[in-house]
Amino acid sequence: MSFTNDPPHGPGEVNSVAGRPRDPEVDRRVLRAAAEVFGEDGWGRFTVDAVARRAGVGKASIYLRWPNKKELLASCLEARVTPVADIDTGSVREDLVQLAGQMLTSFFGASGRATTRLLMEADRIPEVAERVKELRQSQVLAARAIVRRAIARGELKPGTSVTLLLDAIVGGCLNHALATPDDLRGRVGEGLTDYAVQLVDFVLGGVTAG
Amino acid sequence: MSFTNDPPHGPGEVNSVAGRPRDPEVDRRVLRAAAEVFGEDGWGRFTVDAVARRAGVGKASIYLRWPNKKELLASCLEARVTPVADIDTGSVREDLVQLAGQMLTSFFGASGRATTRLLMEADRIPEVAERVKELRQSQVLAARAIVRRAIARGELKPGTSVTLLLDAIVGGCLNHALATPDDLRGRVGEGLTDYAVQLVDFVLGGVTAG
Repeated sequence: MSFTNDPPHGPGEVNSVAGRPRDPEVDRRVLRAAAEVFGEDGWGRFTVDAVARRAGVGKASIYLRWPNKKELLASCLEARVTPVADIDTGSVREDLVQLAGQMLTSFFGASGRATTRLLMEADRIPEVAERVKELRQSQVLAARAIVRRAIARGELKPGTSVTLLLDAIVGGCLNHALATPDDLRGRVGEGLTDYAVQLVDFVLGGVTAG
Repeated sequence: MSFTNDPPHGPGEVNSVAGRPRDPEVDRRVLRAAAEVFGEDGWGRFTVDAVARRAGVGKASIYLRWPNKKELLASCLEARVTPVADIDTGSVREDLVQLAGQMLTSFFGASGRATTRLLMEADRIPEVAERVKELRQSQVLAARAIVRRAIARGELKPGTSVTLLLDAIVGGCLNHALATPDDLRGRVGEGLTDYAVQLVDFVLGGVTAG
């Protein structure tokens, strides 16, 4: 199957200009390629041309869907970089292990490089800066809720800093990802659950009450 | 004073090809510009042209000193991104506050963006990958020595993980820098010493013995 001719099949959306059904598989393929190109080379080298080549589709297929590269990157981030989900397991340790797990998955996953790049380059690309604010905000809201409930349950000291907790947990996961060379990511990726537990136990020791 | 003509003054090195004294101020200016260009746009857009424009010097002045952009970036990192210095104050808390302080200075300093980029892009640029390994290695050696002495003094539990401690401290500082928007870096930069103390106290709580 070739994507270069953008074959109309499957229950794709109808494109309003051409009236041709869109192929959702092409969309996915382009968005995955966009994440790869952005992750590897950053905004400085992010072009529709590079994404089309990587995806194995014609540039026209991309322009049929996205008017420019900024919209393309924004769609890619919308589809592939997900905010932190609300976490409420009833235990602060388990909540934080899940939070760390979500971070590790996003940093080590298929779009991990795009995610870490995004954290670094967001303010250079106004079109996606808003998205990064949302992602950071989702971390803060999730952490704030986790800490508030844990204080109410007597698991954490009153006044525990949400910011420091986030810096230690999110930053710890980020440093773990950045310190892992490309050729070891597969192997290290298998031990992420263990790492999440270790990091949380390490950090929690300092803030648990009593 | 204009740098575009590379005026020969000051106790510069004598260039072996032209026999003309090199102006160390031009060197510094070019290396600072290189850090800015690399920090803002990354390797994808790092060109001798862009650095020359930013530094306000002619391209010839750069090629007189560096044969290509890889050597230029390598020199820039050598000059402006420094390994962690050995720290031994006699107290683990003070050692770690100084370690965190060094990290914060490097992430928030004039070449802070170049430093964080470097952590992210190192494996895309073989010529500087070695330098990043050295920088990471200097963190590990410094942290290992700090932990070893602290265990010997009874300040830290035996078996304290150097990796987790580094992830929490270095990652915490990194996340703090990445979460700070450009327009707040000046204000946040003034409170870095306080932040270093808060982060260390937060993390240490979990690993101090007794």
